[in-house]
Order: sequence, then structure tokens, then C-alpha cells
Amino acid sequence: MTQILSAEHPDVQAFASLNSADAIERLNALDRDDVAAILAQLPLERAIAIFDRPELHHAGELIAQLPAARATALLEGMADDRAADVLLELGDGDRARLSGGLRAGTLEALRRLMRYAPRTAGSLMSTEFVSVPADWTVAQTLAYVRRVERSRETVYAIYLLDPRSHELERMVSLRRLIAGEADESVRAVAQPTDPVWVGTGTDQEEVARLIRLHDLLAIPVLDEARHVLGVVTVDDVLDALIAESTEDVHKFGGVEALDRPYMRIGFLSMIRKRAGWLSALFLGEMLTASAMQHYEDELAKAIMLTLFIPLIMSSGGNSGSQATSLLIRSLALGELRLRDWWKVALREIPTGLVLGSILGAIALLRIAIWQLGGIYDYGPHWMLLALTVAATLVGIVTFGSLSGSMLPFVLQRLGFDPASASAPFVATLVDVTGLVIYFSIAALILGGTML
Amino acid sequence: MTQILSAEHPDVQAFASLNSADAIERLNALDRDDVAAILAQLPLERAIAIFDRPELHHAGELIAQLPAARATALLEGMADDRAADVLLELGDGDRARLSGGLRAGTLEALRRLMRYAPRTAGSLMSTEFVSVPADWTVAQTLAYVRRVERSRETVYAIYLLDPRSHELERMVSLRRLIAGEADESVRAVAQPTDPVWVGTGTDQEEVARLIRLHDLLAIPVLDEARHVLGVVTVDDVLDALIAESTEDVHKFGGVEALDRPYMRIGFLSMIRKRAGWLSALFLGEMLTASAMQHYEDELAKAIMLTLFIPLIMSSGGNSGSQATSLLIRSLALGELRLRDWWKVALREIPTGLVLGSILGAIALLRIAIWQLGGIYDYGPHWMLLALTVAATLVGIVTFGSLSGSMLPFVLQRLGFDPASASAPFVATLVDVTGLVIYFSIAALILGGTML
Repeated sequence: MTQILSAEHPDVQAFASLNSADAIERLNALDRDDVAAILAQLPLERAIAIFDRPELHHAGELIAQLPAARATALLEGMADDRAADVLLELGDGDRARLSGGLRAGTLEALRRLMRYAPRTAGSLMSTEFVSVPADWTVAQTLAYVRRVERSRETVYAIYLLDPRSHELERMVSLRRLIAGEADESVRAVAQPTDPVWVGTGTDQEEVARLIRLHDLLAIPVLDEARHVLGVVTVDDVLDALIAESTEDVHKFGGVEALDRPYMRIGFLSMIRKRAGWLSALFLGEMLTASAMQHYEDELAKAIMLTLFIPLIMSSGGNSGSQATSLLIRSLALGELRLRDWWKVALREIPTGLVLGSILGAIALLRIAIWQLGGIYDYGPHWMLLALTVAATLVGIVTFGSLSGSMLPFVLQRLGFDPASASAPFVATLVDVTGLVIYFSIAALILGGTML
Repeated sequence: MTQILSAEHPDVQAFASLNSADAIERLNALDRDDVAAILAQLPLERAIAIFDRPELHHAGELIAQLPAARATALLEGMADDRAADVLLELGDGDRARLSGGLRAGTLEALRRLMRYAPRTAGSLMSTEFVSVPADWTVAQTLAYVRRVERSRETVYAIYLLDPRSHELERMVSLRRLIAGEADESVRAVAQPTDPVWVGTGTDQEEVARLIRLHDLLAIPVLDEARHVLGVVTVDDVLDALIAESTEDVHKFGGVEALDRPYMRIGFLSMIRKRAGWLSALFLGEMLTASAMQHYEDELAKAIMLTLFIPLIMSSGGNSGSQATSLLIRSLALGELRLRDWWKVALREIPTGLVLGSILGAIALLRIAIWQLGGIYDYGPHWMLLALTVAATLVGIVTFGSLSGSMLPFVLQRLGFDPASASAPFVATLVDVTGLVIYFSIAALILGGTML
């Protein structure tokens, strides 16, 4: 530790003049010891700006590697929501060691932040906001904002509190504040409507939805008594949204959400993240082998039937995955509620029937062309075979659309994230049923001729 | 038109006291004529705030339904990027009629905005920003901001221009500006680094990435001469990001992106959005029938082989869809570049081999248990059959992982959005090859015994 501080690291000058985002990109590519040396020697302000961003890799390990005084100064200077996240990355020993040097107020705020569940407004919020009594003047408020500006994550939304009860009364934006007359009451320039707010337990998706709906730069987090505990800013929400939509795509693809970029995941973690779902789906899909075994006699009698199994099964899976992708987004965006499931079902059944008929018609045509064109001989009962395939396609696409659209509702009803419904999961669900539909229709249409 | 203005609509009072987001939610549920009547009679400020939000349905048709003077006043009052979007929703006749009443400056700004390609910084930007000569003082700048605040979409980022060339020199945030000393030069409180900027043609995902990377509230859009043409604000980016991630999930599910919520799409549009891809995939999947026809003799000889076709094919599709979901996000987030394709390939091959071996082992176990437990009789060569299935699984999962991960790169290389790689598309790609792998391995292992 003393060694890294004894001489100036050759890159310190270069890093001092970079903007934080570029500096982080380069730091992330360097050796950990070099990064620690540079962060120890950069001007404190610059080092704080760098630690303030979640893009810096291994922030916890880095801060633990710095001299204690430096680490404490950094934690004091960082936004408190970020400082809490960094402390959470540390082992108990390091966390206790570094916490020891913090001011009592900071420590209390960080402890409170670390208690909230991940992905909630509580865990995203910063306690560094500006609030003033609602009976202040514009000039008083502006003077206060100027004084505390450096220590607040956002000053663009200022919260007006009831002078006695300290309950949240109104919100005023900095732009309206500076446009107001100095001796006016700050209430007079505030928004005339009740401020939009969330509780500490509000899910980050709902926080994002409200910020977006009301075009806010920050949303206040209130306790039961309407006291402001903190604010969630739009940039925290942006990061949370990006992370969440990455996770949704991964889940939809049937992978456990990765916690870091593709190239930075260890080989074994990557295997673990993928093998779980892949094996589970494989076990489910084994039912297809059982179903096929069940229909062994039919298969032996009419080998022609097997030719279309992949085609039929994939069509069911594809239509199911279409429906699922539509519904998980509608549920995530709040366009549909749980109670709307029957409206969706009433739409998906006719949709599935029409889509299935289109595929059925293509299949009929394909078999007829191959048969009549002499490309392949499906035997004397080719018309019945074509009819079986077409009817099955209508059935399986309808079933796929219906079950693909209902799955997100079922998951939400059971308390899971509707976005856990993955394309491979839907396909597996539809595959087994698809085989049963196929062989049942075949028995009905081909019984007495091919079967 | 005269009729709806003759008496006050009974709901006008109620709407005047709602916040914009709630008002829009209720308006969207009403009959179009009622909405037009209410919007014609609300105080102008309130009506502007409502039209300013993209959440209002049918904004174009509504504004065309209002008296011309009202419509013009609304367009003048709205943020210009939003006004341009509303004008674009109109037919040529209405657009010409309403444009006629606009001030020359507004009309010119809107015309310019309407020319930019959708999803670019140009089409997202607002021309209502604040810029001042870099040699002004803090007090001068602050006075100017106070004066123009009402007519600017954002005043939180103020751009400092070279006094002579008008090129962008520095950016100062409103918070640093108000914290500065009145007689200080505005340059002294500005950010010391070069401002981050984009061009009019920059893609919205890249704009979002930069805003997020540098924690900005707005990013300036420059022309070749470094003149500021406009700014893209964080709330515009948030909306664009949500729309884009919905689209990505839809595309990944194999649906053409819907342009409105699920329940608001006409039945026929819904069919069109889904039938295209479904039919294309179906035609592709028909190759499986051809492949099966090709192996007809093998199928007839060893009916046992057919039992595992669905299981094998779905495993290939599932592993492919996992890999695709990982890579489309990594490419979208800029974690990987096109030139990194070989690094990914070198990771996916061993990953696929391990995952395939896991599934192969499960399959071996399953066949052995069924055979030895007397649940099903796979015949005298059951061990060779089990080996064929296991070896095929290793091959197909490796092939699925590799092709699923390379597909987004190929699409990007060909100039398409890597997110167009859908799970059904990957599955179809892998299905046909999967059959060929299966029957080739079967010929190798079972040749002379079962085949």
C-alpha cells in the first residue's frame, strides 16, 4: 500500500484531464494495482466523480485497497446511494474497517440505504436532495440551494415541506424557482398539483413508469407519514431500465440473467447460467419422447406422419413465442392488467385460428405440389395426409397462441415476473401437446386408411 | 366544429385540475369528439401541456379537428420536436392548412425537424435550448435564462459558444451556474472538459448510451461546423429506449414491431404483423420435411430414431436462442464490436460442447433407466442408440450455440439490426441442420446394426 503511494504513477496526469466516462473505460482495461495507484493519486474531486459511476469495475475491491483515509474521503464524497452499493460489495471485515472512519450522519444514511431490498425505490434512492419549508421566499430558497448545491445529488427538484408537520406539500423545479420573483413565496412558483411520489418498497419498473409518465427529473420517496426519505433521479432509473431490459431479453432467451457483460463472465459461471434452464427444458422435452413411444404403432404403420413432426412442432412453438413476446411487454408496461386475461384469450383464439389456417393452406399446397408434380410420393392417401397436417396446424397454432399469451398472466398470478416466460419454455410447453394433437387428428382422419 | 364550441363541455372543469398524465389517461378513454371539445375549451397552457406528451392518442387527428386559431396556438406552444411529430401524423392537406398560421421561425424549425430520419438524434432533438456567448458573466447568463425559461424545453444545460465563430465551446449546468459568483465569467463555472455531442444522424441507441454514460440531462446535436442545432433531452431518450426495448422483445419473439399497445391494434393488423414471419419461418422449416424425406429409408428401418427427433431439435433451438439473447444485448449495449466475433466463437464452441455433454449425459441416463428398468424396450442395440442420441446432442448444442451467437454478428455485418435475430429464426436455422447431424451420426454409429 505504501509502495503504490511512494511515487506518482506515470498515468495520473493523463487521467486527470479525461472526462469521467472515458477515464473509467481506460481504467477498466488496466491492471487492478495500477487502477488503485491512479485512484489514490488523482485529485480527490476527480476520484470521487469516477467512483460515483456504477460503470467502474471492482469498485468495492478498489476502495478496500486504498489507504483508509482516502477511502473514507471517497465514501463521504460519493452520492450516498452509490456509496451504499460500493459498501455492499465489500466483505464484512473491510466494510466495518471503512465504516469506522465515516461521519455519524453519513454512516446512518448508508446503513438505512443498505437495508432496502434490491430493485426497489428504497435501494435506488439518494438521501441527498433539497427540501425547504413551504413558507420560505424564492430568494431564501435560492440562497439555500446555492449553499448546499455541492453536496446534493440533484437540486433540480426542490421539495416544499409543511413548516410544522414536515409533510411533503409541493414540488418546485429549479427552473421555475430561478424564474420567480425574489420576494415571492416559494409556494407561488411551485407546481399547483400534488407531487407524484413513491414508497421505499415500490418496484423500480413502477418508479421508471412514473418518472416517464410525468416527465420528471426525480421522484420523491416518502414514508407513511409523508416525510421525504430520499429521491430517485432519472439517471438512476435509466441505468436500472437498461439492466432490466437486458435481463428480460436474457430470460426470454431462456438464460438466467447475467450480472456482468458477456466477455467478463467466467467460463464456469456462463455454463451454470445456461445449463440450469437448458437441462430443465430438456427434462420437459423428454415428454415428447414418451409421447412418441406411446404412438409407436401409429408411427410404424404410417411413417409418412413422421415427416411433418418437426414442421408442426416448430409452428406451435413459433406462434407461442410470438404471443408471449407481445404479452410480456404489455404487462411490463402496464398496458394490460391481470384481470384482462380473458380479453386477451378472446383475441388470441381467433388470431390463432386465422394464422393456423394460413400455415395449413401453405402446407396443403406444398404437399399437393410435391405429389402432383412427382417430386415425392406420399402414397394413395396423400389428400387425407395433407388434410391431417393442415388441421393439426390450425389446432397447434391456436393452442400455441393461446398458451403463449396466457403463460405471462399465469406467472404474474403466481407471483413471478411475467418476463420469466421464455421462448424455449413456451416451445417446450407446446411441443408435447402438439404431438398429442397431431396423433389424435391423424387417428380421426386416417383411421381405417393409413392407420 | 362550431357546435362543439357553443357550450362548455361538462368535463372541462374536471380536466383543468388534473395533472397532465392523469388527464391524458382519461382523455384516451373518451370518444374522439368529446376529447376535441375538451381540448378546445381547456386553458391554453393546460391544453399545450397535454399535447406535449406522446402518450396522447390520435394527437394529429385531434389537432386537425380544432379551430385553426386554436390549433396554431397549440403548435406554437408545444415543444418543437413534439409539434413536428404531430404534424407528421397529418395528411398533406391538413398539414398545409395548419402550417399556414405558424410564425415563420416556428415553421422553419418544424420543417427542418421533419426532414430527419426517424430514430436519429435529429428527429429526437428539440431546437428550444439555451446558448450564450462564452464571454458572458454568470449574472448575464442567469438573467438571460430567467427571461427565456418559458420557451425552452430544457434550461438545465446551457451551451457556451465561441463569441465569434459560434462554435460550441463548453457546457455549464444550471446548478453550477446558480452556485457561481455573479461577476465571474460563465466559462469559469463551466465543465472543464469538451462537451459530449452527437450529429443529426446519430442513432437513438447511441444517443441513449452517451447520455447514460456521461449522466447527462441533455446532449447537444452539432452540425459539421460545430454549431448547436438542438438538444436531445433525457426524457425523450427514456421514451425512445422503452419503445426500442419493446420492439426488441417483439422482434426476438418473431413478431414485426407493433406501433401501438396490444389491445389497440386492429385484428387484421395483428394478423399481418404475425403472419409474415410465421409464414417465412414455416417455409424455412419445410426443409425439415425435405430432410426427413431424404432419410426415409433410415426412418423406415429404425423407427426408434424418430422418437428422439423432437427432443434433439428443441435442444438445438434452445441453446441457440440462449446464445442469441446474450449476444444481441451485448452488441446493443456496445459491450462487443463486430470485430470481436471470433472471441465469441472461441467461447461458444467450448460452452456448447460442455452444455451438449450435460444434455447428452442426461439422455444416456434416461434411455438406460427406461431400458434396464423395463419401462420401454429400445431393442437389442439400445446402447448404440443411446450413444447416437448423446453424440448428436453434443453436436447440435455446439452448433446451436455457435450459430445462435454468430447470427447477430452476421446481421450487423449485413447492415441489419442485430436484434432482428429472433428465437424462432435461430430455432428454424438449427432444426434443419440438426436433422442432418442426427442422421449422419446415426449412419456412422448404427450402420450395419440398426441401419
